[in-house]
This record gives sequence, structure tokens and C-alpha cells, in this order.
Amino acid sequence: MEAGEGVSGTTSTPTEEMNGAGNLMDFLDEPFPDVGTYEDFHTIDWLREKSRDTDRHRKITSKSKESFWELIKSLLDAWSGWVVMLLIGLLSGTLAGVIDLAVDWMTDLKEGVCLTAFYYSHEQCCWTSNETTFDDRDKCPQWQKWAELMTGHSEGGGAYLLNYFLYVLWALLFSFLAVSLVRVFAPYACGSGIPEIKTILSGFIIRGYLGKWTLLIKTVTLVLAVSSGLSLGKEGPLVHVACCCGNLFCSLFSKYSKNEGKRREVLSAAAAAGVSVAFGAPIGGVLFSLEEVSYYFPLKTLWRSFFAALVAAFTLRSINPFGNSRLVLFYVEYHTPWYMAELVPFILLGVFGGLWGTLFIRANIAWCRRRKTTQLGKYPVLEVIAVTGITALLAFPNPYTRRSTSELISELFNDCRALESSQLCDYINSPNMSRPVDDIPDRPAGPGVYTALWQLALALVFKIVITIFTFGMKIPSGLFIPSMAVGAIAGRIVGIAVEQMAYHHHDWIIFRNWCRPGADCVTPGLYAMVGAAACLGGVTRMTVSLVVIMFELTGGLEYIVPLMAAAVTSKWVADAFGKEGIYESHIQLNGYPYLDVRDEFTHRTLATDVMRPRRNDPPLAVLTQDSTTVEDVEMLIKDTDYNGFPVVVSRESERLIGFVQRRDLTLAIKNARQKQDGVVSSSVVYFTEDAPQLPLSNPQPLKLRRVLNLSPFTVTDHTPMETVVDIFRKLGLRQCLVTRSGRLLGIITKKDVLRHMAQMMNQDPESIMFN
Amino acid sequence: MEAGEGVSGTTSTPTEEMNGAGNLMDFLDEPFPDVGTYEDFHTIDWLREKSRDTDRHRKITSKSKESFWELIKSLLDAWSGWVVMLLIGLLSGTLAGVIDLAVDWMTDLKEGVCLTAFYYSHEQCCWTSNETTFDDRDKCPQWQKWAELMTGHSEGGGAYLLNYFLYVLWALLFSFLAVSLVRVFAPYACGSGIPEIKTILSGFIIRGYLGKWTLLIKTVTLVLAVSSGLSLGKEGPLVHVACCCGNLFCSLFSKYSKNEGKRREVLSAAAAAGVSVAFGAPIGGVLFSLEEVSYYFPLKTLWRSFFAALVAAFTLRSINPFGNSRLVLFYVEYHTPWYMAELVPFILLGVFGGLWGTLFIRANIAWCRRRKTTQLGKYPVLEVIAVTGITALLAFPNPYTRRSTSELISELFNDCRALESSQLCDYINSPNMSRPVDDIPDRPAGPGVYTALWQLALALVFKIVITIFTFGMKIPSGLFIPSMAVGAIAGRIVGIAVEQMAYHHHDWIIFRNWCRPGADCVTPGLYAMVGAAACLGGVTRMTVSLVVIMFELTGGLEYIVPLMAAAVTSKWVADAFGKEGIYESHIQLNGYPYLDVRDEFTHRTLATDVMRPRRNDPPLAVLTQDSTTVEDVEMLIKDTDYNGFPVVVSRESERLIGFVQRRDLTLAIKNARQKQDGVVSSSVVYFTEDAPQLPLSNPQPLKLRRVLNLSPFTVTDHTPMETVVDIFRKLGLRQCLVTRSGRLLGIITKKDVLRHMAQMMNQDPESIMFN
Repeated sequence: MEAGEGVSGTTSTPTEEMNGAGNLMDFLDEPFPDVGTYEDFHTIDWLREKSRDTDRHRKITSKSKESFWELIKSLLDAWSGWVVMLLIGLLSGTLAGVIDLAVDWMTDLKEGVCLTAFYYSHEQCCWTSNETTFDDRDKCPQWQKWAELMTGHSEGGGAYLLNYFLYVLWALLFSFLAVSLVRVFAPYACGSGIPEIKTILSGFIIRGYLGKWTLLIKTVTLVLAVSSGLSLGKEGPLVHVACCCGNLFCSLFSKYSKNEGKRREVLSAAAAAGVSVAFGAPIGGVLFSLEEVSYYFPLKTLWRSFFAALVAAFTLRSINPFGNSRLVLFYVEYHTPWYMAELVPFILLGVFGGLWGTLFIRANIAWCRRRKTTQLGKYPVLEVIAVTGITALLAFPNPYTRRSTSELISELFNDCRALESSQLCDYINSPNMSRPVDDIPDRPAGPGVYTALWQLALALVFKIVITIFTFGMKIPSGLFIPSMAVGAIAGRIVGIAVEQMAYHHHDWIIFRNWCRPGADCVTPGLYAMVGAAACLGGVTRMTVSLVVIMFELTGGLEYIVPLMAAAVTSKWVADAFGKEGIYESHIQLNGYPYLDVRDEFTHRTLATDVMRPRRNDPPLAVLTQDSTTVEDVEMLIKDTDYNGFPVVVSRESERLIGFVQRRDLTLAIKNARQKQDGVVSSSVVYFTEDAPQLPLSNPQPLKLRRVLNLSPFTVTDHTPMETVVDIFRKLGLRQCLVTRSGRLLGIITKKDVLRHMAQMMNQDPESIMFN
Repeated sequence: MEAGEGVSGTTSTPTEEMNGAGNLMDFLDEPFPDVGTYEDFHTIDWLREKSRDTDRHRKITSKSKESFWELIKSLLDAWSGWVVMLLIGLLSGTLAGVIDLAVDWMTDLKEGVCLTAFYYSHEQCCWTSNETTFDDRDKCPQWQKWAELMTGHSEGGGAYLLNYFLYVLWALLFSFLAVSLVRVFAPYACGSGIPEIKTILSGFIIRGYLGKWTLLIKTVTLVLAVSSGLSLGKEGPLVHVACCCGNLFCSLFSKYSKNEGKRREVLSAAAAAGVSVAFGAPIGGVLFSLEEVSYYFPLKTLWRSFFAALVAAFTLRSINPFGNSRLVLFYVEYHTPWYMAELVPFILLGVFGGLWGTLFIRANIAWCRRRKTTQLGKYPVLEVIAVTGITALLAFPNPYTRRSTSELISELFNDCRALESSQLCDYINSPNMSRPVDDIPDRPAGPGVYTALWQLALALVFKIVITIFTFGMKIPSGLFIPSMAVGAIAGRIVGIAVEQMAYHHHDWIIFRNWCRPGADCVTPGLYAMVGAAACLGGVTRMTVSLVVIMFELTGGLEYIVPLMAAAVTSKWVADAFGKEGIYESHIQLNGYPYLDVRDEFTHRTLATDVMRPRRNDPPLAVLTQDSTTVEDVEMLIKDTDYNGFPVVVSRESERLIGFVQRRDLTLAIKNARQKQDGVVSSSVVYFTEDAPQLPLSNPQPLKLRRVLNLSPFTVTDHTPMETVVDIFRKLGLRQCLVTRSGRLLGIITKKDVLRHMAQMMNQDPESIMFN
């Protein structure tokens, strides 16, 4: 009796005996390596993780009363969450700052070099210049284009061609480096990372996806990819980078490193910090994490995310990569309000954004599927080189595509007060002007504006096409900036059109009320902003977080209604063609087991239709509480690949008493065989509270009640699948047993649920990754 | 057989027979009145509500394919959510505007009247005045104080006393009217309403709490209460008013009126609209609803809340009650950044806020408990009159308490550029000044400032004491404004102190770096803002929503860090003395069955410790599937007051097959007795799929499988209570059955869970209202 007293060998008090889960944990902390962890590409059990954390917390609290040192330890434990947030904020802010500086420098390197110090970007190089106007300062002598440096000529066809050639060459070099680094060192560093992070946060394990190696390589290759001039942004990858930081700091505290559930709370906050530094929008970042990325987002996480996002934003600000002390990427200040009538073009921009979103998602997914299924996928380096070559060749001749996309967006957002020297502000001034030239509204467009319009139209087509082929290649690539660029270009074109229409037709009814001659009534920059919001919304289907990010980007509460009108329209239009945003589409394309919170399951199926075994399958693999031998168990483990096995009273009654994890079972038997005398293949495994007294001739029994989960989750076979889906979502279950009047009928795993949902929506159920 | 074919008399197809819940609903839509509704002070079953809505949706979708008219109807149904949001936004914005205007007028009525039109407030009266400076305009001749109007003298002791007397008289009149209206017409209209709305949103039914009558009376009495000059605000009650609007519009659409779950989604959004109009802070409103008020907040609701909040804010802006086209209540613009060293006073203000929060909550709850348990509670009118009298008598002599609290806060928040004529800005100017007088920083304080400081200190003590007695009286009363006032006064005092310290000690190390002579380094208004945030945070324990509201109120992203530092400190300090905010404390005081999402349950109890029947109780009242007679059932219903009964295979095996609601059972039997021939007291009730063929001599059997819920929620007796609490919270269960290997052992209701949690926290478990 004593020898057979459980595997861990400790005697347990009756109250402990009652508490199956508690004991399980005590046991798990003890002798076995890796107990309580999950295998790669498996789903975690949120309830179990939570209960483990509570146990840990309980232990620390009760210990803290014992000594002063334990009290200090418990306080440290309680504060570790905030410490992790602080560290995440500091590191991701710093990394974002470094990335910004490096991208600035390398983007300019494609065009020329600073003679005073080669590591200065164009702007930094000319800061110290004595020229006062913006235009002249831009052409300061310290900064030399490649042709000028090499041949001494800065003008002429030869110089242009040389510059062109070197621009393409640098772009190819950067992108080749990026794709090679990704290929060789960290294959997980490619893409935007948001689909995978969503999947991870929903409770899936992808080992190495948030590793140190990925962090390092993604940071470096992100700089290279953005600098190469490809049509991609750094926002999505920055979220990935911030999550890697989060994962890194989790490993410092056993509270987070040993609990997959708690770890995900930290990662949610890290995602917020990522968006915060990407745009300088801390509130928007938190809402983005809440709305778009996170799965399980308790209120505590909300508060901590906000803290991490703020620390990150302020770290970035102290680094001051944009050189203007502004937290945000595109700070604009408009001086005119908007008018009700303008809602019409804003809504049209919303429709455009929705259509663009649909087009982009469909085309991009089709192309990515092609990449996955054909020969194309075998030559990622070649693909990147080819796309970079085409991008650079086509981008150089057009001034709006040659520069970096974020500079382009910034110019399009601003109104002409801030853009004196821009072609976009080449308006014709009438000779009898009294006010300063750059402060006059309501002027006819000059030839520069028309040239700019043509170039913008070409840039729009180019961006639309090239982005489809760029997103999904084997380099870090974000979608926010290209989407916003498409919208901003379209918006600015519409804005200038409305402005000129108003100038030439002050007498039209729609303009008569708010747009008298000489009045400053149309701000084309606002149209660009609205267009950008619409396009971003169409692609990602963000809603509140989108509006908040745009409003933080630009600092104006006044423009919430235009932004919101465009975002709503864009979402409705895009949703009409397909419910999924780009991230969900990529999750589906890759077959990740992601149970979307937003999908409504409205079919009338029951648990009995989904559970396994199906009608003609072999019966469910179960263990009995007191009649299975060690050998039987080992056979079962060998023959099947299930994650766990239900334990029933007997094969006849099939009344469920618990559930045992495959991993725990394997380890427990291995351990018993090594350490416990008399446990042989023919030993009977007991899951009951007491093993019966057996004659001495029989082999020693093996008592495994301690690895048995006595509170497995059950539903009846009549439960509607809709409720089952709800339970899986809200409780984060891994599996659920199906019973009828206490008899075990079958099992439903998360994978079964996902497969069933896919079936019901007429999708290919086989594409879901095994979990 | 045919005659006994279920109660509703329709024949069912096999697939329908499979789907217990679906059939239950079909059946419930049919002959019985009020089936599927809940009784007053009962808890709703979220899973059931959700499943009912899915059924409804499914029905509409399948019908929509039948005809064009049905398609239109289904589209209307899909859009009804947005329509409701639009209506809520419009109505709550309008009501907020009307309330603002009325409060303005009636507050001024206490001091005087406008001669041009009696319904003008002081400010409106003097708008048309020709005086240009703010100070003169304030004393325009059209506006006459009561003494001036009655006696012709505007100065002197007599006039002062007459004004004083009339001020008190008006205040008493307003508050008497308010309390009488509440007493007579709508007792639910008192208080802030937020604790009750939190409880309702968590799934509790309080009939009439959001009724039309409450809406009307709360709106009117809110105006009266605020105008009476009591230390209360309109923010909390506005949330209640908005929720009443939400409830009102729910009744227009059966989708919402017939489903308590869907209705709560609308109410969550309405709460956001309420805060949005209270402060002009739409994003803050949404976050407040998410963080503080709502229980079940799906992403769809987030988006809709945002829409409702925006519509409400813009409706309010078009009404323009503040006369400045600003959306927000306290618009401020500071011109100086803050410095790191200032974090020390900000954190001290946070500590003050936390202490104030603790003091207020403890004192207020103690006073409210006294009111509930002693004679005091029997004379609500007298209490209101007494408190109003004291408030008015003490408030009139001090200029900072005489005016309305929101005006006071507004003055305290602003810096001296915007407050030329205020006593607070009476700084001594040195004679050799070149810059305009109101734009000079770093001046010594004049006598006016010192007078103001004394008056502010007195106002602080007065506000602290009187607010404790005011909140909880039988009139509408919000807490936001008084809390903010306390913080703003304390903050401004600290701010002026720091400012003068910096002026007099430019050489101190802490000032030397950032506060050189002549530099504009300390903004006392910012300290007021930080103090207000800290005090509000200490009382309500809001976090992110608080910072966002403050930042929307003032329009400055730059000051997030000071606000956040104060809010964090205040929350930590207050949490150290007690985890509960004022709303949770009031919920507990009133004994509402509210399962807080934030309370962590960390005790080691199991389901078996909580379930009923307890060890010495009589056995659980159960029905058997085929051996209970109609009479037995009727006896059981008569003898017990349970909400429902588990159905088992037989009393011997006790294997659970389902759960039947008391209400459904009563109605089904009543209906059968009326309409079905042969159903008598000795008829056997069958819950099985088929009733056996009985000899003709036996009475007709009654088949009730259709009212049986075949998928009751079960847990095993070994399930840790922590998991059970989690399940109740996340799935919104009403009750849960406890089994062991398929045998029914007991039942756990939400009330049992709450009682157990209270027991574990050593609170009085008997105070929880029966549900």
C-alpha cells in the first residue's frame, strides 16, 4: 500500500485528495521534466493555465506570511508584470528609434551620401547648413548625389542614368541581403507577423516565432527591406518585434515564462507597444491590440498595455528620430473646419477604400496561394530580387514613388501652408495680393499641380499593383503604409478636384453656402487623410482603433466624423464582398487553428454531429479506472496520437470520471518504471482513490489518480454547436467531452470545431493545421 | 398517441426532435404568454438568450430567400442595430443639450434674472451687450441681481443679505421639487444610477429602472438637483438617462425588446453615449463603458458604441450649450511643456487622490449604511432639504463655491492667459515690462492670489465634507464633477505653491535646470487637471478611460504622462486600502448579485463545497423522466421556489438528462390542462422521446420533452471553484448542475457562487439579494 502511494511518493491529506487539479499541479512541479508545457503547433488549455497560475499565486501568498524574505519575493512577483511592461516599452521604443534612424539613412544612401559624415541622412546632413529656406536647404552642398560625387556633374542625362542605375543597385543589394538573412537565420522573420501573432495569442504554440533570433534578424532585415524602396511598411513587423521583446522579457520571470496564458497577456501588451511606436499613437495601439490582435484581454491587461505603449512612445520621443520632437509620424494641423457637403466625397473615398480592400485581399491571397502551390515558392530570393528590380526601375522616374512612402504620405496629408516648395502647391497667385503668398486659399491650380496630379495617378496605379505582389514575400513587410499611401494619393486627387471645382464654380448650389470666393473651404490634405483611413480600413477591417490611430496621428478631434464616415463606409463595402480582413485571410491561407471571435456560428448542428468517433469510426480510445494494465496504456499511447484519453468507470458502463493528458501519462509511467519497484508491464493502472489490496503474487499496482484531471469539461450530445463554439471561444478549451446522461459518447477538440465551422462555410476543412 | 403529441400540438420532424434548444424556442414562440421572459430581480441566462437570438436570426435568414418582402425585412432587421444607435445618439445628445441649457439658466436664476428675456442665462443675457472686455460684459446692465431688481440697490449689506436669502431659497425650492418628484413619480431616478446599470448589464433584471417614467423624471430632477447648487454632477445620471433612451428605443425592435442579452448590448453602447455627452469625450465614453460599466462587450458593440457616442457628441455640439463651438466641457490650451521634476508633485497629487478616494468611499458607505439601517432613511425629503440648506448657506459667501462646480473646475484648469480678470491671476507686474501683461510668466503672486488660495482651501474642506453626505441622497447625483473639483482645487493650490517656489528660488537645484528667471516653467492649471484626474481615479478606480477622458477634455496628447502618473499612483494608493471603487461598494451595499470580472477568486474550494443540497439538507428536488405525475409536479412547484428542476432517469440511478425551467413547466401544465383532453392530476409526465403505449384505462400521459433543456451546463464535483466562477462569469450562466461520473449530485446557482465568494472574503453573505 505504502509503496504504491502515487508516483510522487508524498502522502496527501484528505483535502488535497479532494482537489484533483490542485494535486495535479503539485505533482507537475515535481520530478518530471517539461510537464505542463505544450508541444510545438499545439493548442494551449486556457483554463488549465489559469488554474496553474492561481495555484502559484496561492503558494506565494501563503509563503509570504512565513518570513520577511518571502514577503519581499511575493511583492517582487506582484510587481513583475509592471517591470516587464517597462522593459518592453523601453526596448521596443529604442528599437523603433534605431530602425527609424537606420531607414532614414539607408533610404537616402540610394540617392547620395553626406560628405561631412557618411552616416548622416540627407536631412541630418543639411541641418547645419546655413541656407534658410526649405528648398535651398534641401540642396545643401554637403550632400552629394552619387553622380555628382563620381563624375562631378550633377545635371544632365548621364548623371540621371548613373543615379538611376545606382538607385536600382542599392535597392537590389538591400533586398538581397534582407531575403538572404531571413532565409539563412530566421525563416519566421518574414511577412508582417500579425496573422501569426493573432494565432499565438489565441492559444497556439509556434516555437521560435518570438525568439531572440527572430527579434534580431527581423529588426535588421526590416531596415533593409524598408530601405530597399519596396512597397511595404514597418508597422506590422514592429508589432512582431515588440512581441519578440515581450517574449524575451517573459523569460526573466517564471510567472510568465512557465505559464503560456500569462505569457499571452504580456504579448497582448507588447503588441500595443508595437503599434504605439509604429505610429506614435499609444491609445490607438492599445485599441488595436484589443480590437485586432488579442484574444483574451482582461482589464488588467488593458491598463498594463497602456503603460507599455506610453513608455514605448516616450522612449521613441527621447530618441527623436523624426527630428521634430513630435511623437507622431504625420503631424498635421489644418486651419479650416470641414462642411457637411464634404461628407459626399468622404463617403466616396470610403467606397474606394472598401473596393481597394476587397481587390487587394483577393488578389494578394490568390497570388500567395499560387506561391504556395506552384514552383514559384521554391525561389523566394529570386522573387524578391525580381520584385525589387521592377519596383526600383518603375519608382525612380516618378518623384512621388522615388522617395520613401512615409514621406509621400506626410506630404499628401499636409496643407499648402506647410508645403511652400512642393509641386502640389503650385497655385497661380493673382498679382494684387496683400497677404503673404503661402497663406492664400481659393486659388486656381498652376501647371505644377496638374503635373503632380498625373504623377500621382501613375503612382496610384503602380502602388496598387506592386503592393499585391510584395506583401507575402520572404522579407519583413507591413501593410499599413502602402495601404495608407494608396488612400492618401486617391484622397489628395479627389481633394484637389473638389477644391478646383469649388474655385471655378462658386455659384453651384452645393458650394454656394460654404465656399464663397476667397474663402478657405477645401483642405485637400484632409481628403488624403480620409482616403488613407478608408483604404487601411478596407484592408484590415479595423474600426475604432483605426479612427483613434488616425486621430492621434494628426492630433485633431475635429476630424473624427469625416474619418469615421469613411471608415464605416469602407468596412461596409468591403464586408459586402467578404467578411475577412487581410490578417484573417492569411491565417486561413496558412491553415492556423484560429477560432475567430467575430465569426458568428449560426448553424443548427449539435455536438453529436461534430464529436468523434463518427458513426463508422472505431470506438473512442478510453482508459478504465481499474482494469487497464501498464502494457495496455503503453500500447494505446503507441498506437494513437491523441493528446489525452478519457477515463471511464468500466467499458460497460462508460461513465466518465476524468481525463488524462497523454504527456502526463507517458511521463508518469516512465518515471514509475524507473523509480518504483515492482511496476511491470502487467501492473494494473488505478485511477481510483484507493487501489484494492491485491494478493502478493500480483504485480505492484500503479496509482495514477494524481495525473487525472477530475474536472474535464463536458457537454451533452444535444448541446447546440453554437453553444459549444461559444464555450470553446470564451473558456479557451483544448477539448471537451460529450456525454449523454453521464455516459461518455465522444470528444470534440478545437480542431474538430474549426473543421466543422469550415465545413459549414463550405471551405476546405483539410487546410487546418493539426493541433 | 396523436392526442398526446406534445403540448403545442404540431408534429415535429426528426431533426427538430434532435435539437432540444431549437424546439424549445419554437414552442416558446407559440401559445404561452411571457414564456422566455424573466421575473423581476432575477438573473438572465446569457447562453439561452444568445441561442434564442441565433434562432431568430436563422429564421429570418431562411425566410429572406422566400420573397422580396422578407428580404427587405431581413435587411431592416440587420440594420436595426445601427438605427437604434443613431436614435440613442440623437436623443441623448438632445437631452444633454437641454439639460445643459436649463442648468445654466436655473443656476443663474439663483442670483438674478435677465431683463430682456427671463429665460436667458447670465452669459446669454450679456452676449448682445456692447461691452468688449470680459469683466465688463459680465456686469452688463440687462442682467440684474435679485436685490438690485427688488430694492434698486446693487451694493451694500442689505443687498448682500437679500441676495444671500434668495440664493438659499431658490436652492431649497429646486431641491425640494427634485426630491418630491423622485419620491412621487420615479423612485428609481435617484442616485447616479451607475451601480444599478452595472448590475443590469451583468444580467440582472430590475423592471422599471430604465423605464420611460424614470427617463422623464430623472431628466427633470437632474436639472433641479444640479441647479440647486448641491455638490453633485450630472455625469453619472446622464449615463442613466442615456441608458433609459437605449431601453426606450429597444422596445421599437423585437430583436432587442424580446432578448435580454441583445438589449444589454444596446445599453452598453448607450452608456458610452452618456459619458460622451457628459464630457464631450466620445472615445473616453466608449472606454468608460468598456472598462467600468459593461459586462459582456463584444467587438461589434465596441464599434456601435463608438458610433452612438459620436452621434451624441455631435448632436450636443449642434445644440452648442456652452456657446463656444467646443465639443468638450473644459477646453484648455497650455503653452508650456512639463518637466521631469514636476512628476514629484504630480505623484503627490496622485497620493492625495488615492487617499481622498479611500476616505470618500469609506465615509460615504458608512453614511449610506446608516441611512439604510436607522430612522434617517425614513425622511429623505427632510434630509435633502437639510443638506441643501447647509450647502447653500456655506457656499454663498465663498466665490469659489457659489458658482457652479463645472465653472469652478474650468477656471482652475485654465492658465492665466485665458483668465485675465480672475483673482487667481492677480500677479504683480514689474513696471519695466515690454510684453503684453497677460502673457508674462514668472511673476510674484499678488494679494488676490493669496486671498484666492485661502478661499480655495476653505472650498476644498467644504467640498470634501459635503460631498460625502450628498452622494446617495434620493435625488439624481453624479460623482465625477465633485471629485474632479476636489482634485482641481488641491492641484491648483499645489501648482501655485510650486510656481511661487520656483519664482523665489530660481537657484535651487531642482529649479535651476528648467526654470530660469523669466521662463514660463510651471502651469498651475496643469496641476489642477492632474489633481482632478487623481481624485476621480481614486473614487472610481477608472484607469485608461480616465486618462482618455481627461485628454479628450483638454485636447492635449502632451500631458498624458503626468495624467497617467497621477492616475496610476492614485489607483495604487486607493487599492492598498480596499479593492473596490465607489460603484462596486454601492453594489455591495445594496446587495445586488453582481459577479465582478475583476475580483480574482483564488481560494482552494471545490464545486462540491458550494453546491446545494448541503450535507444535512433535504435531497435535491428533481423530476424523473417517466415516473412523475402531473400532481407530483404541481406539488413540487407549490412547495418550492426554485427557478427550475433537474430531470433524471430515475431516483435510483440519478443520471441527469436535462433541466426544466419552473416557468415553462407551470405554463406547459396549465396549458395542457386547459387544452388537452384527458390530462388529469394522475397523468404521468414524460420527458422521454416517446411515451410508452399505455392501457386505455390509464389517464392520458403528458409529454413535456419540448420544454426540457437537453443541454444543461454541468461540472464535476471536483471542479475547483475558481474554474466554476470563471465559467459563470464568462458564459453568464444562471445555474450549473454538479455531477460525479454522470450522477447528479447538486446544483450551483449564481447566488450560491456570490454567497460563497462573500463568505471567502469574510463578508456578510446574507446581504445578497435573492435572485
